[in-house]
Amino acid sequence: MPGFTLQKKTELRFEDVLARLPELLQAEGFGVLTQIDVKETLKQKIGVDFRRYRILGACNPRFAHQALSADLEVGAMLPCNVVVYEGDDGKAVVMAIDPMQTMAAANPQVRAVAEQVRERLERVVARVT
Amino acid sequence: MPGFTLQKKTELRFEDVLARLPELLQAEGFGVLTQIDVKETLKQKIGVDFRRYRILGACNPRFAHQALSADLEVGAMLPCNVVVYEGDDGKAVVMAIDPMQTMAAANPQVRAVAEQVRERLERVVARVT
Repeated sequence: MPGFTLQKKTELRFEDVLARLPELLQAEGFGVLTQIDVKETLKQKIGVDFRRYRILGACNPRFAHQALSADLEVGAMLPCNVVVYEGDDGKAVVMAIDPMQTMAAANPQVRAVAEQVRERLERVVARVT
Repeated sequence: MPGFTLQKKTELRFEDVLARLPELLQAEGFGVLTQIDVKETLKQKIGVDFRRYRILGACNPRFAHQALSADLEVGAMLPCNVVVYEGDDGKAVVMAIDPMQTMAAANPQVRAVAEQVRERLERVVARVT
């Protein structure tokens, strides 16, 4: 596993992590542009029961603009996903995509931006306590 | 460049490709769960002018469920992005993320699902004519 995500098992409940993420992201300059309720989507579309699982599409517009200006292909790897789901023990797991494994791997020209984004996402994950 | 996307330069206008994508995706079992207007977002958030550029978050719920059941980390790489933007000559470029470079690279256990998703996204891109 090359480790595509920065992740952490928390001692918190799913809904508490979900509620805190927007402000933690905001503090690092990320807005939440999209949100997918995976449990609800799978239930509605194919009638399947799934654990609570939410995908937030986070975007720091300045870094996104820098990266897109260097390489238009980068948008296929945006926004940066931040996920929270309910572990088997009921405690929340939080994870964020590692942009060094996606956009920086696709194009070394965006490496410097991806590194800064990664550092910020690491802080967000670290602060979920 | 390892080629993180399946892409094609079209002879069509941006708005025509954007209008056609939902039905082309639907024909391969993908719904559009999210949509980001990058031009509008960059203008609103940081006052920057950018080309017309849209990111559609496409999801085939059966494949998503299979992949997530094999590996909960996969959600950090969902939905599958399909992008359309306006090239310098005014003609639209379409591209889709290659899930073999993201989720299958992160975890070989989801390789079979990722291959099927890739084939479907290849057909979507091919049909944009």
